[in-house]
Amino acid sequence: MSTTYSMLGGEGPDSYREHSKYQGALVIAAKEKINEVISAKLDIDSSLNLINVADFGCSSGPNTFNAVQIVIDAVEQKHKEKEFQVFFNDSSNNDFNTLFKTLPQGRSYFATGVPGSFFGRVLPRSSLHLGVSSYSLHFISKIPNGIKDRNSPVWNNEIHCSGSSEAVEKLYFDQYKTDVGSFLNARSQELVSGGMLLLLGSCRINGNKFFESVEGMMIDYIGTSLNELAKQGLIDQEKLDAFKLPIYAAQEDDLKQIIEANGCFTIEAFEKITHGKGEYPLDTNYLTLAFKASLGGSIAAQFGQDAMEKTYELVSEKTEEMLPQLAKAKPGIQYLIVLRRN
Amino acid sequence: MSTTYSMLGGEGPDSYREHSKYQGALVIAAKEKINEVISAKLDIDSSLNLINVADFGCSSGPNTFNAVQIVIDAVEQKHKEKEFQVFFNDSSNNDFNTLFKTLPQGRSYFATGVPGSFFGRVLPRSSLHLGVSSYSLHFISKIPNGIKDRNSPVWNNEIHCSGSSEAVEKLYFDQYKTDVGSFLNARSQELVSGGMLLLLGSCRINGNKFFESVEGMMIDYIGTSLNELAKQGLIDQEKLDAFKLPIYAAQEDDLKQIIEANGCFTIEAFEKITHGKGEYPLDTNYLTLAFKASLGGSIAAQFGQDAMEKTYELVSEKTEEMLPQLAKAKPGIQYLIVLRRN
Repeated sequence: MSTTYSMLGGEGPDSYREHSKYQGALVIAAKEKINEVISAKLDIDSSLNLINVADFGCSSGPNTFNAVQIVIDAVEQKHKEKEFQVFFNDSSNNDFNTLFKTLPQGRSYFATGVPGSFFGRVLPRSSLHLGVSSYSLHFISKIPNGIKDRNSPVWNNEIHCSGSSEAVEKLYFDQYKTDVGSFLNARSQELVSGGMLLLLGSCRINGNKFFESVEGMMIDYIGTSLNELAKQGLIDQEKLDAFKLPIYAAQEDDLKQIIEANGCFTIEAFEKITHGKGEYPLDTNYLTLAFKASLGGSIAAQFGQDAMEKTYELVSEKTEEMLPQLAKAKPGIQYLIVLRRN
Repeated sequence: MSTTYSMLGGEGPDSYREHSKYQGALVIAAKEKINEVISAKLDIDSSLNLINVADFGCSSGPNTFNAVQIVIDAVEQKHKEKEFQVFFNDSSNNDFNTLFKTLPQGRSYFATGVPGSFFGRVLPRSSLHLGVSSYSLHFISKIPNGIKDRNSPVWNNEIHCSGSSEAVEKLYFDQYKTDVGSFLNARSQELVSGGMLLLLGSCRINGNKFFESVEGMMIDYIGTSLNELAKQGLIDQEKLDAFKLPIYAAQEDDLKQIIEANGCFTIEAFEKITHGKGEYPLDTNYLTLAFKASLGGSIAAQFGQDAMEKTYELVSEKTEEMLPQLAKAKPGIQYLIVLRRN
């Protein structure tokens, strides 16, 4: 766990590339708003010849290519005849080879890959004009102390923070606050004054619990499936106890408050975006594959490829069975947050 | 072939990482001279906070880490308290994943990977302060027309340009001239005025032929081995006819003249470096593995992994048998060329 969390690489049928259309739809839905805010609020030296753009948590594509192109197109409407350099950042375990081999032909920018955790600095001081980060801020940098320990009062029996225990949730939230703070501090050093940071992702409607959402339910099914495999002796119980997903879905107001408390940025927009694909479709195969692409890699890393495949067979069965439940899931918020570096 | 040529990736026992010590020794031997020239001749704006360094043709490490560290150390003696960003460039087929996973811990620079052919632009205009390129300029971007065609008057029966046919050599040399020119043109646009380009590699002593060198002989043995496999029907003759290594070893004076003809750079140094490892050791295993690491990848890509392994079994036998011949090989020149952007 910790910052080594990565999407399923490569270009295969189960890869994140193939099953991240849901995530990719948000930036497309947000395009008009992005154009509008960049046009109105981006405040960089117009005599510059070079504009640097970064995607923090780019994965292996192709969503990142859409995201940076949308940003570049928006900037080009305002600043003509510039050169663009794009920094694709993700952890050093990310599949950069696939990213590089699938870069868009005829792109109008110089592409670079930047390996390293986005909770710390990955770019030089005041070198960046626009940053974007899509579906990445729900990752936390480590699992809080006590969560994995069966003898601890905050031992979490689940593989994630469902929101069912207040004490557990508080620990996850504290870690989330620290991590988002670290992310913003690093970006505030990398961005030039007047530069912009676009955050896209999902969060909870204030008061909703994670276990009430489609994501929460799907991760519950994954956890239940892993428990079944452990009971059958097909995976090691100790390994399962140690397996906690480093993700936390914040409430809208909490996220806003963390940004305000950081103090380095002005919030230029905090928009709920109506997603091209709306909520997840109620389709067993779609849901199973989407959560296999995003979480299968870390399950395979912990339990092996075979156990991962078995897990998702069970997940598929459970999803099918639970479709009526999933139909009643509480919606989340898909957001576009635009921050300007003070 | 063409620009897709790559070293054997990964960290395995046959990888370029493990068998590129010969190449790596040159930059270490040249360190003092590099310090001296950077100290005396690097002419960049001392008010800059950020210094950009690139390695063109970085492969998957670890030589590139030594090379850029030597450059950074030299610059730091002159310019204190700067931030450094290093651009590791190689073709998009290079194993960047391994490069990124093996980046030195505690390094004092921001690391980025830049996929793309160094015969073209890979970095923004005037964005680079120091470039280095080590054992890369002997690659040509394509095999000249006619060379692969059995009916052509310049058909080359060998897998490379040995220098035994003048007509063949002229075609390779013309391609080399074009390619080094393209390389220098691209770097001249990327470098700031006063910035520096360090070229390390090997070339021929004027008048010597490539087939008289250890490299030439070893590649001849590889060619002979492939021919034997073709005769045995273990590899396809047509595939062998199409297999030509995109490398050309220039003569010292020719290389110098190409740089002068380009006109964008001042030659600050053109030094013959006495190599830490001297000439290749007369050791069958060492030689076989060294030429497997550098050429095995492209042989495997053309003929499959099994055929590649068989080829090197034969190469090992031939090398053993030809040690007396190898002992009489003509030496080459290991060079450090330092160019300053006018």
